[in-house]
Amino acid sequence: MSTQETPPTAHATCPETGKDSGPAQLALRRVRIDTYHENVAYLHRDCEVYRAEGFKALSKVEIKANGHSVLATLNVVDDETIVACGELGLSKSAFEQMGVENGHQATVAQAEPPESIGALHRKLAGERLGLDDFRAIITDVTEHHYSKIELTAFVVATNRDELDREEVYYLTQAMIEAGRQLDWHEKPVADKHCIGGIPGNRTSMLIVPIVAAHGMLCPKTSSRAITSPAGTADTMEVLAHVELPFEQLQDIVRTHRGCLAWGGTANLSPADDVLISVERPLSLDSPAQMVASILSKKIAAGSTHLVLDIPIGPTAKVRSMPEAQRLRRLFEYVAKRMKLSLDVVITDGRQPVGFGIGPMLEARDVMRVLENDPRAPNDLRQKALRLAGRMIESSPDVRGGDGFSIARDILDSGRAVAKMNDIIQAQGSKFFDHNHPDLGALTFEIRAPQAGVVCGIDNLQLARIARFAGAPKVKNAGVDLLSKLGDEVQAGDALYRVHASFPSDLEFARQACQKSIGYSIGRAEDVPRVFVEF
Amino acid sequence: MSTQETPPTAHATCPETGKDSGPAQLALRRVRIDTYHENVAYLHRDCEVYRAEGFKALSKVEIKANGHSVLATLNVVDDETIVACGELGLSKSAFEQMGVENGHQATVAQAEPPESIGALHRKLAGERLGLDDFRAIITDVTEHHYSKIELTAFVVATNRDELDREEVYYLTQAMIEAGRQLDWHEKPVADKHCIGGIPGNRTSMLIVPIVAAHGMLCPKTSSRAITSPAGTADTMEVLAHVELPFEQLQDIVRTHRGCLAWGGTANLSPADDVLISVERPLSLDSPAQMVASILSKKIAAGSTHLVLDIPIGPTAKVRSMPEAQRLRRLFEYVAKRMKLSLDVVITDGRQPVGFGIGPMLEARDVMRVLENDPRAPNDLRQKALRLAGRMIESSPDVRGGDGFSIARDILDSGRAVAKMNDIIQAQGSKFFDHNHPDLGALTFEIRAPQAGVVCGIDNLQLARIARFAGAPKVKNAGVDLLSKLGDEVQAGDALYRVHASFPSDLEFARQACQKSIGYSIGRAEDVPRVFVEF
Repeated sequence: MSTQETPPTAHATCPETGKDSGPAQLALRRVRIDTYHENVAYLHRDCEVYRAEGFKALSKVEIKANGHSVLATLNVVDDETIVACGELGLSKSAFEQMGVENGHQATVAQAEPPESIGALHRKLAGERLGLDDFRAIITDVTEHHYSKIELTAFVVATNRDELDREEVYYLTQAMIEAGRQLDWHEKPVADKHCIGGIPGNRTSMLIVPIVAAHGMLCPKTSSRAITSPAGTADTMEVLAHVELPFEQLQDIVRTHRGCLAWGGTANLSPADDVLISVERPLSLDSPAQMVASILSKKIAAGSTHLVLDIPIGPTAKVRSMPEAQRLRRLFEYVAKRMKLSLDVVITDGRQPVGFGIGPMLEARDVMRVLENDPRAPNDLRQKALRLAGRMIESSPDVRGGDGFSIARDILDSGRAVAKMNDIIQAQGSKFFDHNHPDLGALTFEIRAPQAGVVCGIDNLQLARIARFAGAPKVKNAGVDLLSKLGDEVQAGDALYRVHASFPSDLEFARQACQKSIGYSIGRAEDVPRVFVEF
Repeated sequence: MSTQETPPTAHATCPETGKDSGPAQLALRRVRIDTYHENVAYLHRDCEVYRAEGFKALSKVEIKANGHSVLATLNVVDDETIVACGELGLSKSAFEQMGVENGHQATVAQAEPPESIGALHRKLAGERLGLDDFRAIITDVTEHHYSKIELTAFVVATNRDELDREEVYYLTQAMIEAGRQLDWHEKPVADKHCIGGIPGNRTSMLIVPIVAAHGMLCPKTSSRAITSPAGTADTMEVLAHVELPFEQLQDIVRTHRGCLAWGGTANLSPADDVLISVERPLSLDSPAQMVASILSKKIAAGSTHLVLDIPIGPTAKVRSMPEAQRLRRLFEYVAKRMKLSLDVVITDGRQPVGFGIGPMLEARDVMRVLENDPRAPNDLRQKALRLAGRMIESSPDVRGGDGFSIARDILDSGRAVAKMNDIIQAQGSKFFDHNHPDLGALTFEIRAPQAGVVCGIDNLQLARIARFAGAPKVKNAGVDLLSKLGDEVQAGDALYRVHASFPSDLEFARQACQKSIGYSIGRAEDVPRVFVEF
């Protein structure tokens, strides 16, 4: 369309004179239906406001009351117990956004199309967008002005190579500006991030105490799991509170040089969460989207130095070295434009890291590494030390190559676990005994179908099994790996143990294992090789 | 994701033994909320089935009862008057699809991802798809297995030049196979179609009686308006019933050689309607989508010869001759692959055709042309005669160039109106007097702001004003043009009259006119020119 739609407001008609008597007033009603990311408005079919042609099925409406307004999808109702004539129902989160009482008067109008719809249409037509176009789109995305259809159109139209690297920089910049931007008034502010896809990869919970103990500022705000069986925030939540008011979070960082909290309260790059709500069901994770998502969060959090972990392997997000190098160069280009010092490391992503998959199992592994327990998974320890070493090397006073031994000294000396305990106390500790973790009591084991060497562990399938078992919502559910790549097993040896707390979850996990156990047993020479730095 | 999700069924747990007691049974309940194209299932938050991790917010579920199954989006409810524990609510159309009574036992399972999701992901990754891929996708689209997000991803990923012309042919073929395919056991079976975008362009209602009176088979099934103020079916509905059982429709065509009915009952290319539900809000109408949409409907209807009208003009869908020629070649390529004889005509799309915009106003214009009334709009008459002439020339016994005069003789002699009256009687006539049409009684006129020549009429804005006035739902609402391109007007002369039946509609239309009246007044030399065949 070349011209913008005219957005009229519903007017009431005086029944006696037939004349317009101003915008129609409806009584707001909270409808206790949880429609999640989509605001829904419910209007009775016989309501005079609905009859107008402007209010057609599924068109978006704008509801105004008390100085607030929300956009919502319209559903038409034929049941007066849900909404009556003269009432306007709102789904739960939409009602909360209005901030008024049940019965408050509201007006309803046909929603204006989002201001950035012209820019979206130009991108759909294959045109290149400028910084102001991305600003307009991201503002509308952040303010929930886009429908699911428009959001999907944006993420698909910016998928693959549809954005050039300059546009990726614009998108990143626009995403940063749409939320809060922290300034810690010192340098370096160090952070690390992994592009994801490897279960059990909880290095942040080791790196933050090591780096903070070294004295570097490391304000790590973490996400909850999106498609994985545990995020850093889910795992940390086994040990401490993670949903802290933003001011408390800042105080903790200033006092302890680090934190391990959920980033949701900080409002950093809020458009990211909205875009993920459509990227996830499509399994879309294009380089442009990954770069904008990760760098916008980190730069908004005030980071000046970032160590980025790109794991490669047959079931990792990135499956070959050329692909990893191409992604690295895009990250580096955008980071340079944003004046972020970026250190990309390409790591072994052939299998899960550590033994446990799921919040409590991963918290157990982390605490064992911190306490230098002989049962600690060595791969997790080594990877965390190497990444922490890289971060420490961003201090001006550390020589290249010395970071690893500094990190190892901090861990071995107990300074890391002491720092971790400080952070746990500051965030509000929870009871957790890693020697006797209260794991889900319903279990089954998956056994080797034949003798041989473990030559394949499918990251995706193991993550799926852990999720079906209940992780991350059920903290003590998940998968405990009893063998890793290269291990020799006899037929009938347990490969891993599934923990669940509810019979239906156990059944879901069992059905997933029946489809594929996620392990291959073969010869030693069948173990895939990757040539990575570490 | 490289592996398919395992789709588990929700199992009930025996409260005493903690053991699985088979798939959980819930009582179906009709929830009287109209969610339109989206099936929604409502489950109480405390329902044991919901607690399982598999049933997360907004995930798709599959509901089975009585041998039927539907896929639905899950909403969680906290109000027992809407659904109670142990009940499974379904939105209105979803409930109807189940074909059971309230309270019928049903099971609910996590929905399997659509079978074609792998092909969709390959197209999102930029790969070329084969015929079987398109068949799988279109089957899932037709059977409502795709969510709005997946549908949008498909239409955006096949937008612009993402499909090569061979893929457009595959898509067209797959769309035909997904529905009913008619065979009239004779040749030629003639049809005409316009790509749309020009208000008042009701040539079909003239061409069908002319061509059928000539003796050619012309089984014209029409659509209702999608974004326009009237489709052929909406306009014909002023004169006769258009929603006929498919068998009656076939009988009428065999008896009268033509019909003017709504195509919805014939189930021709049903995926088209589903795809349009997301293309429309995005204003997506790429050449590939247009070709597959139009040709699949026509070929499924058994047409062997098609005259295709591509109007060009500053506010038409196609705005330049090179663009029209490019579109023409794509239509011709796919038509040739499908063995459809196609005749493309590029026509003047600078302004609406005829005077009326809206079902009753357009029916008035059509009947005046058929009755050779001096008040008939000459542009509509001329365009219809030329298109009918082209169709008649597809008869083996008509010489090239003779079609127009044959069509004119049929119209002038009264044979066309006689054929139209036969079709109206056969479909079931309604009372309509074109001399005294019962137009919407609430009116206002838009007057020329200055003296000059009408040098621009915005098709999009006039369509929008007619829609706000109530068309096509309110049959007697719309816009009646009192001047056309090139007409001289004085300041204050009426340019057009708006008709509405409801005060709120009149107000909507008035607000739209305040934004833009859609007419430009200037000098005679400012009238845009197009060089088209007719």
